Amino acid sequence: MDNLTREDCTKLDREDPVSEFRDEFVLPENTIYLDGNSLGALPRTTIHQMEKTVQKDWGMGLIRSWNEAEWITMPQRLGDKIAPLIGAKPGEVVVVDSTSVNLFKVLVAALRLRKDRNVIVSEQENFPSDLYISEGVMEIIGGTYERRLLPEGDDAIEELIDETVAVVMLCHVNYKNGHIHDMRRVTQAAHSKGALVIWDLSHGTGVIPIDLNGTDSDFAVGCGYKYLNGGPGAPAYLYVKEALLKEVTQPLTGWLGHTDPFAFDTEYKPADDISKFICGTPPILSYAAVESGLEIFERASIEAIREKGKRLTNLFIRLMEQECDSFGFKLLSPRDSERRGCQVAYAHSDGFPIVQALVARGVIGDFREPNIVRFGFTPLYIRYIDVWETVTRLSAIMESGEWKRPEFQERGIVT
Amino acid sequence: MDNLTREDCTKLDREDPVSEFRDEFVLPENTIYLDGNSLGALPRTTIHQMEKTVQKDWGMGLIRSWNEAEWITMPQRLGDKIAPLIGAKPGEVVVVDSTSVNLFKVLVAALRLRKDRNVIVSEQENFPSDLYISEGVMEIIGGTYERRLLPEGDDAIEELIDETVAVVMLCHVNYKNGHIHDMRRVTQAAHSKGALVIWDLSHGTGVIPIDLNGTDSDFAVGCGYKYLNGGPGAPAYLYVKEALLKEVTQPLTGWLGHTDPFAFDTEYKPADDISKFICGTPPILSYAAVESGLEIFERASIEAIREKGKRLTNLFIRLMEQECDSFGFKLLSPRDSERRGCQVAYAHSDGFPIVQALVARGVIGDFREPNIVRFGFTPLYIRYIDVWETVTRLSAIMESGEWKRPEFQERGIVT
Repeated sequence: MDNLTREDCTKLDREDPVSEFRDEFVLPENTIYLDGNSLGALPRTTIHQMEKTVQKDWGMGLIRSWNEAEWITMPQRLGDKIAPLIGAKPGEVVVVDSTSVNLFKVLVAALRLRKDRNVIVSEQENFPSDLYISEGVMEIIGGTYERRLLPEGDDAIEELIDETVAVVMLCHVNYKNGHIHDMRRVTQAAHSKGALVIWDLSHGTGVIPIDLNGTDSDFAVGCGYKYLNGGPGAPAYLYVKEALLKEVTQPLTGWLGHTDPFAFDTEYKPADDISKFICGTPPILSYAAVESGLEIFERASIEAIREKGKRLTNLFIRLMEQECDSFGFKLLSPRDSERRGCQVAYAHSDGFPIVQALVARGVIGDFREPNIVRFGFTPLYIRYIDVWETVTRLSAIMESGEWKRPEFQERGIVT
Repeated sequence: MDNLTREDCTKLDREDPVSEFRDEFVLPENTIYLDGNSLGALPRTTIHQMEKTVQKDWGMGLIRSWNEAEWITMPQRLGDKIAPLIGAKPGEVVVVDSTSVNLFKVLVAALRLRKDRNVIVSEQENFPSDLYISEGVMEIIGGTYERRLLPEGDDAIEELIDETVAVVMLCHVNYKNGHIHDMRRVTQAAHSKGALVIWDLSHGTGVIPIDLNGTDSDFAVGCGYKYLNGGPGAPAYLYVKEALLKEVTQPLTGWLGHTDPFAFDTEYKPADDISKFICGTPPILSYAAVESGLEIFERASIEAIREKGKRLTNLFIRLMEQECDSFGFKLLSPRDSERRGCQVAYAHSDGFPIVQALVARGVIGDFREPNIVRFGFTPLYIRYIDVWETVTRLSAIMESGEWKRPEFQERGIVT
């Protein structure tokens, strides 16, 4: 295989059917932003949307905007806009609370549907917050619940599932290495033993076509601030399959989950639809940014985004082999792009200062304990030439040893 | 007592020490906004704060702003800014989630501290969402919990408290009629029987000096979108008294409540401070508005605000007697301003269309089922002349019967 060149990358950009969307995002000059998997970039339309929401809807409309600016239906309306990205129907998704709070709700909901079972299956490599939430749920429910976790590096989740399992709870795309679980295979395995499934879609939604309905998945949660570009800490979403909506119940029984919140009944009667998963009053300013971020997905094809995501990550892995092979990076992500999300991770014992040295050279990736260097390639705004530039700068950093400078060793907090 | 005149009201405005703050808020022209108890007005500084947060911190800073714009410490930092308004110390308050979600956390936390007791005391007139949350908590915890509710119109909460009571959970200021519970008396009564107290401060914070430490209160929650002017559905806050912080636990065990979130441990270890009450990633755009809204309270005296609040509501009640005595309004709020929050409510069988007719004449109040007309007088931006104008227009509406017009009968959703 011939070495790839800079010109090969610019040619790929010229032929890229998704390239037109880059200009719709605010991106700082002289910066290659490979952390959209942690916080998505700012869509230009969101600037105006936020100005309208703050100055017109809040400032001028005041309390009237709950009706007139349709704030009150935002959880359901935004859910309906996310639905096509995850293979759900209108009425199956609601935007509400955070991913962790939502996981608490659906995990309790699932366990209530399987009262005769006492095992939660997940994996050691799950996003830690999801594991923490399952601890919190087991403690508050009491009884004899136990967790069965797939060990790190193992993929045989089916072997953990038997007739004692109430629910299988997994991240669709692994937060560290980008490994994709086979949603259909896992869901079938769970259902064949009578267990329910919960997917955390945070690291895939917006870059991978997801088919919750087609795989017959039961529950899902996910966040709005990564590839959905909904802003820092954006409200999360929650999916329940239609067939379960009537019977399912959840424990965070706040007023906006009531069937008639403004009747001010003293007794809780849950809505009979997805609204029953709303709890308190939603933070509208943050919702406005989520809605605006979703607008682009009404025009961009998720299949084209996925195709470009595979090509960007393939290119990165190939260029790393070509330019950085001797510097001790160990690929942690799957080589097969079908099994890989839109991010690529390497282990490197000096990962932390290397990421800092890259930031100093205008490439923002991120570092995850203990030794993981992680790059996210958001197809809507990352170019092939950005991949070339990243590897070239990384190679120069490793070649020169500039990552050894004292200023790159100091630890901060990164999310 | 002589009749009050328009001139009396303009004189009160001229002598008002709080009047200078009105210009710091955006208020629509030709509108008297008496619904700040439902959604506070937009502070002018918030416009710029939101522009900065969206365009500079998110747009340019991207992921770096978690550190550089200090997003990561917002829950604690904003909590510390609320603390002086509620008589708490730095480190006892955190801004997080919604009031209902926070009530779920502290109610479970309180019950865990009193495992040998099984009664929750509250009142029928509590804000419905708080009662709903207590239902959800009792159901998920299981066991033999029961709720003991003070009947409507009764004030003898002490009589419900005995040695079986784990926790007394009340709204400090009643959402409908503005009645204030005596925080010291109730807390002492609870403590004397070994019970804990939880206060929902939503309808008082920012207009009434509150002394959680001075009354030795155990837990509190409250919302940011009323008198704190933090924006629609603004993130809420949660207080735990310092002496309980080490031992207390809560069930929503998300990653940002972990003692070291970015270590990505697989096992949950709660922070040993107020941070243990954080769960998922917070919605930063909405937080930015909360922070900006709180800034004004660093300059405005809460005692002066309270004094003006009493005068505004006294004036309103007196003018209603003077101008609207014959129109069938029945005062629901306490006459004694010491026992009354910053809102005044009347019962009227035609309350709904009357509120709509007032809106059409530029006065925004609100209606609460089944027959309650409610007016909030936010001292930071409501003038005495606004009170005069409101009563004058209401009198004209009642005199002319214009509230009977068909367009005022149609029900919408109001929050």
